Amino acid sequence: MDRDEALALDAADPLAPLREHFEIPAGLIYLDGNSLGMLPRATSARLREVVEGEWGRGLIGSWNSAGWMELPRRVGDKIASLVGAGPGELVVADSTSVNLYKVLSAALTIAHDAAPQRRVVLSERGNFPTDLYIAEALARERGCELVLAEPGELRRHLDERTAVLMVTQVDYRSGALHAMAALSAQAHAAGALTVWDLAHSAGALAVDLHRDGADFAVGCGYKYLNGGPGAPAFVWAHPRHADRFRQPLAGWMGHAAPFEFTPGYRPAAGIARYLCGTPPVLGLAALECGVDTLLAAQPLGGIAALRAKAMALTTIFEARVSAACPELTLASPRDAARRGNQVSHAHAEAGYGAVQALIARGVVGDFRAPDILRFGFAPIYLRHVDAWDAAGHLVDVMASGAWRRPEFNRRQGVT
Amino acid sequence: MDRDEALALDAADPLAPLREHFEIPAGLIYLDGNSLGMLPRATSARLREVVEGEWGRGLIGSWNSAGWMELPRRVGDKIASLVGAGPGELVVADSTSVNLYKVLSAALTIAHDAAPQRRVVLSERGNFPTDLYIAEALARERGCELVLAEPGELRRHLDERTAVLMVTQVDYRSGALHAMAALSAQAHAAGALTVWDLAHSAGALAVDLHRDGADFAVGCGYKYLNGGPGAPAFVWAHPRHADRFRQPLAGWMGHAAPFEFTPGYRPAAGIARYLCGTPPVLGLAALECGVDTLLAAQPLGGIAALRAKAMALTTIFEARVSAACPELTLASPRDAARRGNQVSHAHAEAGYGAVQALIARGVVGDFRAPDILRFGFAPIYLRHVDAWDAAGHLVDVMASGAWRRPEFNRRQGVT
Repeated sequence: MDRDEALALDAADPLAPLREHFEIPAGLIYLDGNSLGMLPRATSARLREVVEGEWGRGLIGSWNSAGWMELPRRVGDKIASLVGAGPGELVVADSTSVNLYKVLSAALTIAHDAAPQRRVVLSERGNFPTDLYIAEALARERGCELVLAEPGELRRHLDERTAVLMVTQVDYRSGALHAMAALSAQAHAAGALTVWDLAHSAGALAVDLHRDGADFAVGCGYKYLNGGPGAPAFVWAHPRHADRFRQPLAGWMGHAAPFEFTPGYRPAAGIARYLCGTPPVLGLAALECGVDTLLAAQPLGGIAALRAKAMALTTIFEARVSAACPELTLASPRDAARRGNQVSHAHAEAGYGAVQALIARGVVGDFRAPDILRFGFAPIYLRHVDAWDAAGHLVDVMASGAWRRPEFNRRQGVT
Repeated sequence: MDRDEALALDAADPLAPLREHFEIPAGLIYLDGNSLGMLPRATSARLREVVEGEWGRGLIGSWNSAGWMELPRRVGDKIASLVGAGPGELVVADSTSVNLYKVLSAALTIAHDAAPQRRVVLSERGNFPTDLYIAEALARERGCELVLAEPGELRRHLDERTAVLMVTQVDYRSGALHAMAALSAQAHAAGALTVWDLAHSAGALAVDLHRDGADFAVGCGYKYLNGGPGAPAFVWAHPRHADRFRQPLAGWMGHAAPFEFTPGYRPAAGIARYLCGTPPVLGLAALECGVDTLLAAQPLGGIAALRAKAMALTTIFEARVSAACPELTLASPRDAARRGNQVSHAHAEAGYGAVQALIARGVVGDFRAPDILRFGFAPIYLRHVDAWDAAGHLVDVMASGAWRRPEFNRRQGVT
């Protein structure tokens, strides 16, 4: 492959026009859409309309007239269509962490009720920390145990004590992708329920929650869904579970009739009981614009087509880097089908400095301690030539030793 | 009093210029700032800067370079200065309901640890429903009991079984105002902890959490703080409690070192452990603009001066309505010092239609089932003449029987 071939792929790419839905700073190659998606073109004007029109002029009446009350369900239905869930099954609310608390609480209770000896939440040691923190705290509170397995060892730990298998489909460091259907089937065979975190899946992979055996799912609005910094998250419960449990965060928006202002809690039917406080309208409006960029891909093949392009992008990048930089260890699965839309390499010393040197060149990835260079490929706004050029920059940074330069190794900040 | 006197009060009002900080639709008298505060002039431009500049161009780097990571603390410190809390003691996070869950969990645990027989959460039957729902669910989970007292009967129910007294300082229907210092002292004398909901207090009353014996507090960003629809909420723990308990929503932002990505949860020191998920940047940015409008009042006497003006406004309105409308029953305390910045009247039939008829005249209050006409007076953007004129409109609506007209009695929507 050479650069002309990458350009030819872009010229022939039916998804290429989707890039126009985004504000892309000139010259930037942004490989961090798996941490914060880019700004959709529509978002700023939409927020202005919400702020100046709906809030500023419509004021309190906009809860009804502008449909604010419906936003958690309306945006939820749109996300549902991207992850194989039905309308009315998914709502936008709170953060991923808070939603995980709700669904883990529900799953633990349902599992206990069926079989009291099931007191283990099983997850991976490398799962995203907030998932583990939430599970650890909840397990302690419930007299349960959080058991952490090494990658690939989950199946071996599934047994008659397992209440819930809690897995993030795509590993945030390595990008390794769990086969949702197979792992769910193994969990179910062992009598356990499944909680899937779709943080790096929603908008990226052709998730099919119903087909692939999920019992509960949560996901993030600000990564591949392009919802903006700290966008609200989403929560889904399989319809066979949604009505079975009063999740602990019994706020008024999950009440069957919140505006009757009655003192006793009566949960809404279905997933609506997973709502809690007043909907965050600004965040929801921005998230809807982000989700709409993915819906715009539907006539072009939708998520399946985007996923195929993303595999091509990660393959271009990975192959060029791995071939030219033997000092970097590929930390992702080599087979694009076995990783998310992400490529990670490890280097004992170079990681931080190399990522900073790349940023200075206009190629934005991120470093994940202690040694991971992580690059996410959002196919909705990236071109094949971006993957090619980004790889070339990384090859240069490694070959030139630029990663060693002091200005790229002054550690500061938090992300 | 007559209209000229109201105009004279406005002409002499040192707080009058604060109205210029808001976008106020021409001719509107907005008496629902206790439900959704008006739009500050600065908000739209600030959001545009956050969206187009910080997100669109700064992208992931803005977590550091634009100070996004610090927003929960920075805006928290500003709110702290309005409620008698110290810097570093209060953070903005999640919703009021979710924050209530955190602090009630903490208070129950601390109370149990000190005295295991304390298993009662005591509150008022008329407390805002979401507070009761959250407490009810948590009490059930913990094997505790939620006891609800009638107004004025709280003191009688405080005893050696009481773990926590949970009170909203201003009743959302009647506006009745609890004396925080006296009630806190009674709770402490009975050995209980106090959780104060400042939903209708923050930005409205000269709250002094330290002086007045609060142990924990939560509050709302979208009422008198003018943070916008569904703005994030805030949470405060007295420094003597803040480090004593791991609140159950142990998300990564409450970790001592979230970006070390370590699997075990280690809570941050102080109130920071009450953070949970990724900060909602858009909501926080808008909330900061809202809080800044109140900080702009500081050189003019601050909250104390605003509160004095609000008492004048509610007095003008209440006196004119009560004098001219004997068919309306005053549902608020007659003494302005004993109610929040709000006046409520009750009428068995007229409530809904009268509020709708007023809205048609450009006077926005709200109806609270079954029979309450509720009017909130945010002194930062309201004039004395607004209170006078609003009362006149209500008097007209009642005297003319306009409230009976069918077009004002088609019930729809939710708020």
